[in-house]
Amino acid sequence: MEHRRVKDQESDGVSQKDIENFDKISLSSNTSTSSLSTAGGPKDSSKLKSIVTLALTLLTSSQAILIVWSKRAGKYDYSVTTANFSVETLKCLLSLVALSRIWNSQGVTEDNRLITSFDEVRVYPIPAMLYLVKNLLQYYIFEYVDAPAYQILKNLNIISTGVLYRIILKKKLSQIQWAAFILLCAGCTTAQLSPSSDHVLQTPIQGWVMAIVMALLSGFAGVYTEVIIKKNPSRNINAQNFWLYIFGMLFNLVAICVQDFDAVMNKGFFHGYSFITVLMILNHALSGIAVSMVMKYANNIIKVYSTSVAMLLTATVSVFLFGFHLSLAFLLGSTVVSVSVYLHSVGKLQQRN
Amino acid sequence: MEHRRVKDQESDGVSQKDIENFDKISLSSNTSTSSLSTAGGPKDSSKLKSIVTLALTLLTSSQAILIVWSKRAGKYDYSVTTANFSVETLKCLLSLVALSRIWNSQGVTEDNRLITSFDEVRVYPIPAMLYLVKNLLQYYIFEYVDAPAYQILKNLNIISTGVLYRIILKKKLSQIQWAAFILLCAGCTTAQLSPSSDHVLQTPIQGWVMAIVMALLSGFAGVYTEVIIKKNPSRNINAQNFWLYIFGMLFNLVAICVQDFDAVMNKGFFHGYSFITVLMILNHALSGIAVSMVMKYANNIIKVYSTSVAMLLTATVSVFLFGFHLSLAFLLGSTVVSVSVYLHSVGKLQQRN
Repeated sequence: MEHRRVKDQESDGVSQKDIENFDKISLSSNTSTSSLSTAGGPKDSSKLKSIVTLALTLLTSSQAILIVWSKRAGKYDYSVTTANFSVETLKCLLSLVALSRIWNSQGVTEDNRLITSFDEVRVYPIPAMLYLVKNLLQYYIFEYVDAPAYQILKNLNIISTGVLYRIILKKKLSQIQWAAFILLCAGCTTAQLSPSSDHVLQTPIQGWVMAIVMALLSGFAGVYTEVIIKKNPSRNINAQNFWLYIFGMLFNLVAICVQDFDAVMNKGFFHGYSFITVLMILNHALSGIAVSMVMKYANNIIKVYSTSVAMLLTATVSVFLFGFHLSLAFLLGSTVVSVSVYLHSVGKLQQRN
Repeated sequence: MEHRRVKDQESDGVSQKDIENFDKISLSSNTSTSSLSTAGGPKDSSKLKSIVTLALTLLTSSQAILIVWSKRAGKYDYSVTTANFSVETLKCLLSLVALSRIWNSQGVTEDNRLITSFDEVRVYPIPAMLYLVKNLLQYYIFEYVDAPAYQILKNLNIISTGVLYRIILKKKLSQIQWAAFILLCAGCTTAQLSPSSDHVLQTPIQGWVMAIVMALLSGFAGVYTEVIIKKNPSRNINAQNFWLYIFGMLFNLVAICVQDFDAVMNKGFFHGYSFITVLMILNHALSGIAVSMVMKYANNIIKVYSTSVAMLLTATVSVFLFGFHLSLAFLLGSTVVSVSVYLHSVGKLQQRN
């Protein structure tokens, strides 16, 4: 397996051959529900898929609630770059703990060993770099759109992920699943409608171009991560995560040096950290791992559904926790998203028949 | 055929037996696309179905545009009850013209003759009476809800029609068609969202009860009309319409006497009629006939889709005609309704497979 993978990667990054190779694997997994070599059988794999999806949904929804909570508690008085670095470090450590447990029970194999080849890791920084470019663009887009309009435009991510998933991973969605995906995007946008949302219709062409480029970057980063993680199905996910997060740590270290070097030097690395900061770091770390797991055992489409449902869960829970007001638009959007989730699963069954 | 129908109607109104009998007819028409004896074959019937649906959509959308136009031109200065009576009279006349053409070409048969039995016509006033009760309730509901909230609540009609169609006509919708129907209701409501729509969430319990009762009355009247018209598939639709409209004339004559007797006596029947009033009467008459045709050759579900799409068409055309503003909510609602229409047709194909 290792030999074939190395041979496939002779061209730069993930080659077309890799994708075709991956495609064969994924196609065979489509017909037999799953052929993941790490899971016992189709039932185990389906269970694993459900567990990681549920975990991602719950972690993402509690993530937004923690952000609201921390905002209510006062302004952020810690450095965001050190918090991001802490998240990456924690994810790295958790992957190592998981790996050491596996080494104890199964011994070190080619699939779970930490040592890797340059060919395996050289594509790992690409998603992080794509996200970096997207985050830089985020500063400029606010010259053309306001915050509520940006919130609405972010839903273009759903469409871009679906289209890139189809093009890059060459996985087919049934017609009903495509309809469901359009509904997911329309439903999420409806749920976020506010009296000032109509501003988005006055977005100048530059704003639209930037929003579409950002959606494509974000969608491509997501789909590319799936390509990287699924390329070698037998490779242990914790070993893959370890290397992904090592690059995450590196990128965030650079960010600390560029943005917060003086503050960290004068006040210390953990200045301003509170109990809730620690909770947020823990939550972000676990969410990040859940995203990787969903990429390994499910796919980007499931990830988009999971985070969309999480958005609705957050708003619903916020009604009880913070006395938020549920609008009619939110109720209608939630209805459309629920029907979309149902249609996605019905559409899947159709595909199998 | 005539004999069986008379025998079936021994109980009051349309008996359970009638419905079961009708159900058999409609079930057999389901499997062979259609077995309408008035249409040549499945292809003809499908074409007829498309034509009447398209006619209803276009007539309904131009109806709303005429209303906006007449409002722009000034206040209504004619009596609404005389206009309604004129609509019913015109429909009656048009049915007679159509019948006389058929008599000339095919001769008078049992199916197209005007003379009818008491058993055939005694159920004809029921839909008109149900609409009357609904219209009376309309005056009282405004004590509990405002106009934008009422506009939103009216979409409950979509759900009530679907449920009553299932229960009374015993026709099955596929799971995807049900999902599509929920989306149709959510999409139409979303398209009508305005900053004041959220008032609907503060509707008191009395308002909700009245809105639900009104939706059920309206849904029942629609489904019952379908039962009446389809009960005898070979009976000519123009003869059926003639009797329906005779009762419409009678009810509206009573309304003129109760509401506008003095005004009509003093100013005359056609006082205040303008060119646009005549156009509106013509449009209402043709729309009414199109509704009957859709009931005969299609069904209530198609009618609901047709009028919903008409609502969206009206708003879109109004942008060009009257410089109306299209909101983001309208665009999102239209997207959801479009997907719903697509899913309804896909769901139908599934059912046939």
